[in-house]
Amino acid sequence: MTAISADILTKVIKKRRSDTHKGDYGRVLLIGGCENYGGAIIMSAEGALNSGAGLVAVATHSLNLSALHARDPEVMYIDWRDHDLPALIKKIDVIVCGPGLGFSNFAQELMQVLCANLTEKQTLVLDASSLDLIAKQHSLIPQHIGKIILTPHQMEWQRLSQLKIAFQTDSANLTALNELFPQQNAILVLKSNHTHVYCADGAVYVNPLGNPGMATGGMGDTLAGIIGGFCAQFGNGLEPILAAVYLHSLAGDRIAQTDYVVRPTKVSALLPQIMKKYAG
Amino acid sequence: MTAISADILTKVIKKRRSDTHKGDYGRVLLIGGCENYGGAIIMSAEGALNSGAGLVAVATHSLNLSALHARDPEVMYIDWRDHDLPALIKKIDVIVCGPGLGFSNFAQELMQVLCANLTEKQTLVLDASSLDLIAKQHSLIPQHIGKIILTPHQMEWQRLSQLKIAFQTDSANLTALNELFPQQNAILVLKSNHTHVYCADGAVYVNPLGNPGMATGGMGDTLAGIIGGFCAQFGNGLEPILAAVYLHSLAGDRIAQTDYVVRPTKVSALLPQIMKKYAG
Amino acid sequence: MTAISADILTKVIKKRRSDTHKGDYGRVLLIGGCENYGGAIIMSAEGALNSGAGLVAVATHSLNLSALHARDPEVMYIDWRDHDLPALIKKIDVIVCGPGLGFSNFAQELMQVLCANLTEKQTLVLDASSLDLIAKQHSLIPQHIGKIILTPHQMEWQRLSQLKIAFQTDSANLTALNELFPQQNAILVLKSNHTHVYCADGAVYVNPLGNPGMATGGMGDTLAGIIGGFCAQFGNGLEPILAAVYLHSLAGDRIAQTDYVVRPTKVSALLPQIMKKYAG
Amino acid sequence: MTAISADILTKVIKKRRSDTHKGDYGRVLLIGGCENYGGAIIMSAEGALNSGAGLVAVATHSLNLSALHARDPEVMYIDWRDHDLPALIKKIDVIVCGPGLGFSNFAQELMQVLCANLTEKQTLVLDASSLDLIAKQHSLIPQHIGKIILTPHQMEWQRLSQLKIAFQTDSANLTALNELFPQQNAILVLKSNHTHVYCADGAVYVNPLGNPGMATGGMGDTLAGIIGGFCAQFGNGLEPILAAVYLHSLAGDRIAQTDYVVRPTKVSALLPQIMKKYAG
Repeated sequence: MTAISADILTKVIKKRRSDTHKGDYGRVLLIGGCENYGGAIIMSAEGALNSGAGLVAVATHSLNLSALHARDPEVMYIDWRDHDLPALIKKIDVIVCGPGLGFSNFAQELMQVLCANLTEKQTLVLDASSLDLIAKQHSLIPQHIGKIILTPHQMEWQRLSQLKIAFQTDSANLTALNELFPQQNAILVLKSNHTHVYCADGAVYVNPLGNPGMATGGMGDTLAGIIGGFCAQFGNGLEPILAAVYLHSLAGDRIAQTDYVVRPTKVSALLPQIMKKYAG
Repeated sequence: MTAISADILTKVIKKRRSDTHKGDYGRVLLIGGCENYGGAIIMSAEGALNSGAGLVAVATHSLNLSALHARDPEVMYIDWRDHDLPALIKKIDVIVCGPGLGFSNFAQELMQVLCANLTEKQTLVLDASSLDLIAKQHSLIPQHIGKIILTPHQMEWQRLSQLKIAFQTDSANLTALNELFPQQNAILVLKSNHTHVYCADGAVYVNPLGNPGMATGGMGDTLAGIIGGFCAQFGNGLEPILAAVYLHSLAGDRIAQTDYVVRPTKVSALLPQIMKKYAG
Repeated sequence: MTAISADILTKVIKKRRSDTHKGDYGRVLLIGGCENYGGAIIMSAEGALNSGAGLVAVATHSLNLSALHARDPEVMYIDWRDHDLPALIKKIDVIVCGPGLGFSNFAQELMQVLCANLTEKQTLVLDASSLDLIAKQHSLIPQHIGKIILTPHQMEWQRLSQLKIAFQTDSANLTALNELFPQQNAILVLKSNHTHVYCADGAVYVNPLGNPGMATGGMGDTLAGIIGGFCAQFGNGLEPILAAVYLHSLAGDRIAQTDYVVRPTKVSALLPQIMKKYAG
Repeated sequence: MTAISADILTKVIKKRRSDTHKGDYGRVLLIGGCENYGGAIIMSAEGALNSGAGLVAVATHSLNLSALHARDPEVMYIDWRDHDLPALIKKIDVIVCGPGLGFSNFAQELMQVLCANLTEKQTLVLDASSLDLIAKQHSLIPQHIGKIILTPHQMEWQRLSQLKIAFQTDSANLTALNELFPQQNAILVLKSNHTHVYCADGAVYVNPLGNPGMATGGMGDTLAGIIGGFCAQFGNGLEPILAAVYLHSLAGDRIAQTDYVVRPTKVSALLPQIMKKYAG
């Protein structure tokens, strides 16, 4: 097991070349936000936007449009019932599915649509409800996809892997990961007070940062968005994922120096400044 | 009568343990916000959120969804007409009922639904309209509940207790409290320019802080939310309530050093920083 | 003609007494904001709220609710088509009518409702569209009202008084004021690059402050709200009006030290700090 | 080819004369923002508003109203399906058409309405979708208009001019510009990492500023709005356009000193302060 260190930020966050445009920094689509959990997909989108994705779009319940644009006019929107969604999915580089998605039949159908339209060039971040939907119905596991990243917290991983939290050892987690996703070369970001990252090849990384002020609703949604933003800009290898995990906690630790509870929206707002300091 | 002091903050606001998650900091549901007073429930939710509750949900009129998430995507939402509300109530640790609730027949029905679904493990903060509804119809007083906290201002207490403001002496208030809530071990937070806290056992506490710049609409809604946030994190004993009352005024006094009128939304925004200074 | 000076702020803005509550600082109702000009009534409400009114309510088109509460949850709302509006009008201390009201038949009917429900204890600030509606139909001039304050800019005053701008001399303005409002003891706040205030008794005051960075949409709506807030707190005599005019420009001048164009929303946000400095 | 320098700001941004009002700083109407791209027209409006236009109005899909006013109550609104839109167009000084407009049949009809109602006193900024609509249907090129400014990025210009990016030399761009707009004395602002400005008479200017942190969605919409704001205040000659291009990048460069990615909404927010420093 290797501890992630600040070096990963210096290594991953590249100084941008002058002759580039927004298309060079990737298209991220976030899918989620039912009537009850609209804020989750907004927070996730803020993670992707503030971490520097070139273009960010959100597919969500139409009820969430006004709040999304009141906060983030930079983000594009599509009603998640829109018939153009499959076509949009095909044009996207990185998809983050799950924040606030919920467990309705419609959510399940949406994941089927997603699976049917993914390509092998794409990266998929599966978070929150999407993992629970997969836990119930393994046929929702995407088969043809460039890269899958899972971002459960321990209870979500328990439901997906059938491993109770006390039994979530590194070796058990790796075994479960490879059984569930035998062909996908998946990466598991298992969120806890010290988040672990598991690779299909057996490598395990631990995040030394983070603080209990971050134990508040929306913190995980934000991390999923940052991972999406990093994959969009820096590729879907292991290192951008490790960097995103580290950055998220580093921002949370900075805020915790002054704040008892760390609001996820403050974490996202701080990303551009922290990234600047580490940009090569 | 005992004056609350800053010691209560140091005593109540615990340094969080590292191996904790959002579930450890409690689930708060706030019920209120009719068409006319939607801002009240938003301000109350901001009090709960910024004081550190692990999860905050709001049951309100559907008209209030966009503004709620535009300000606070961290907060979950449920349409207060949703059939799933009773099931949600059962999963909650602390319920704050009343800010902007209004006096409609529907509001009354909602309180009946609430009373029918409470359990003895839960804490209930009754504020604003909910107290007036009880004043009109005593059958709305919850019978099976772990803890009841009332947060009326003096006029609301007059309507509920039948004590005119001039006659709201400590002994009269205690008598009325025990007559109205004989079995609930209720706590009365009687808001005024020097808020008093009354316990069923006869103890009385006075808040030495606060300033008249805080005499503006929404300040009480915010306090109710902070009390909810503190009970969710620090338990429903007396001390978290005293600490919440003190903190609310301390934040207001800080803002009043620079602002003639103290906006309640600024009070909530300042909570994380003040709490950090007092965290053990 | 007398120049208003900073002394007026010290004189009017009173240190609040400790034993007061929000009811002591007045209820302000702002009426306006049609589909096209919803922002105007929001800006006006922000003027009233930030200048310290105890309670602020807005009667507006239902389309404006989400934006109002996203910015200002402290403000109460009523659909301007609500049958309860006449009852609400009767409970209010100060009414600001006109920002973004528009010129529809409905707007005209709304002013008739207003006129029919005013009382002699109330103060009425007439701004923007309401003045143009009166210009077209003098029967919309309220007859039974404690105090009327008019806040036209020069073109609105031309349409109301029939005085072309070049002929808007002090004496002509006073004559027109007394002819239009013979019994109302009205005050005319004639907005220009150096706003003049005219009293029915012939007194004229000039505002020495203000700057051309304030020449942007919404600045007048904001002033109307501040006047409303001051009358609610400090009474409807001449001095609170002069103080509101001066404060509005003082805030604008502060912002203009750093900003080329002065956004009205920034003026409102700065009011609490400036008022603090002048509070007796 | 001439490099634009900071001198252009000092030359163009005039100290405002005291005896002026909002009408002296121009009326800007921005048309755009379909269901999917509502944020684009909001960001463009923020560019116009913060750069100092006297009055800013937005014609957009009704879904975008709440977010627009939650962010910018200073901006007026009209439903882009409103029958009064043609009448409003006629009263406007500068029109910015295109941000988030989309490619629907309705968008095309809207451009026909626009073309039919323009006058020779007006300035028209064509951005984003509007250029693609023209590329498909040249009859949408306005014939009777005071000034046309085009603000495509390189791909949009490719579709409009039929020049592939590699062939977009200065001389080819000038030739295409004059062929497409033979009678309009058009100005082409070709956005890239070093934006070029082309005049019908053959003059070419290059913007030395800008940084790749600005390569993010919405940056171009913001520039179109700033150009609109500058034409409204400082006239539709070449220099205000050069100044707007330079200012947009200067603000982006300031933000990039601290932020890895430059959010367009931060660019707009910074404009008043930068303009103040260069105001004559």
